[in-house]
Amino acid sequence: MSNLVDQYYMQRCLELAAQAEAREEVPVGALCVFEGRVVGIGSNSREADQNPVGHAEIDALQMASRTLGSWRLTGVTLYVTLEPCPMCAGALVLSRVDRLVYATKDPKAGAVESLFSIGLDPRLNHVFEVSSGVLQPQAAEQLSGFFRSRRKKKKPRTRSC
Amino acid sequence: MSNLVDQYYMQRCLELAAQAEAREEVPVGALCVFEGRVVGIGSNSREADQNPVGHAEIDALQMASRTLGSWRLTGVTLYVTLEPCPMCAGALVLSRVDRLVYATKDPKAGAVESLFSIGLDPRLNHVFEVSSGVLQPQAAEQLSGFFRSRRKKKKPRTRSC
Repeated sequence: MSNLVDQYYMQRCLELAAQAEAREEVPVGALCVFEGRVVGIGSNSREADQNPVGHAEIDALQMASRTLGSWRLTGVTLYVTLEPCPMCAGALVLSRVDRLVYATKDPKAGAVESLFSIGLDPRLNHVFEVSSGVLQPQAAEQLSGFFRSRRKKKKPRTRSC
Repeated sequence: MSNLVDQYYMQRCLELAAQAEAREEVPVGALCVFEGRVVGIGSNSREADQNPVGHAEIDALQMASRTLGSWRLTGVTLYVTLEPCPMCAGALVLSRVDRLVYATKDPKAGAVESLFSIGLDPRLNHVFEVSSGVLQPQAAEQLSGFFRSRRKKKKPRTRSC
């Protein structure tokens, strides 16, 4: 289900992702919404903070917990531009969010629908609703543009003269 | 493989877990070792900090990254008393640790060997060595003792007179 409200929040996530890109981080942005109010935001901060868990979703969940005063984020929807990895999908289960909305799949590390079903798997003690594909072309282009540009910067000079 | 060095560090993890239990957290303790030196420690802090990602492994990995000045924890072994959940197993992949040593399996949420194979799955961009069963009886008893005591505290009075 992609509706105007989801598109509105995903557009904000794309902006957060662009801020990460400006800091030379992989462009991923996330936010948490509770009762129509943004209670947490996050963007990739791994390189700037040299923090292996500095993913957009983790930052947004932790901010939401501080805002709401509880680790239990019942009623919260998390929006993110890229399908969560195993760490972030696991964090969404642990924080008991109601719903995940993401833009584009991650065939290499996506853990909600691509490689695993974390968040949909009834063996874990929480499942959540998943909506995907919201502003997918924009998110996919933002990510592939970033990696294209990084490859170009890293390209070695092959001519010896 | 369970050797004396592994047992030594796992004993320290059991002590960290006991500190968590004293704060009424689920008793789980973790530490990171790099070149024979402890570079990160952690214990469950979810309740005290109301932080959904406040697991022992996450705290230990973040402290190790601060100590070593890098998100990339090549050469690090993480010790933990309980098999990591999806979030923590995912964080171990992201931080590129060399090795995981854990004490007791988690049949309900363990993501390295019980429910998933995160850390052993070659589809992800990093795998690590896994050793389990080190001080297993002590860790299992510490956890079951905690849950026994919590059930006793919560038990409702069923007699009406």
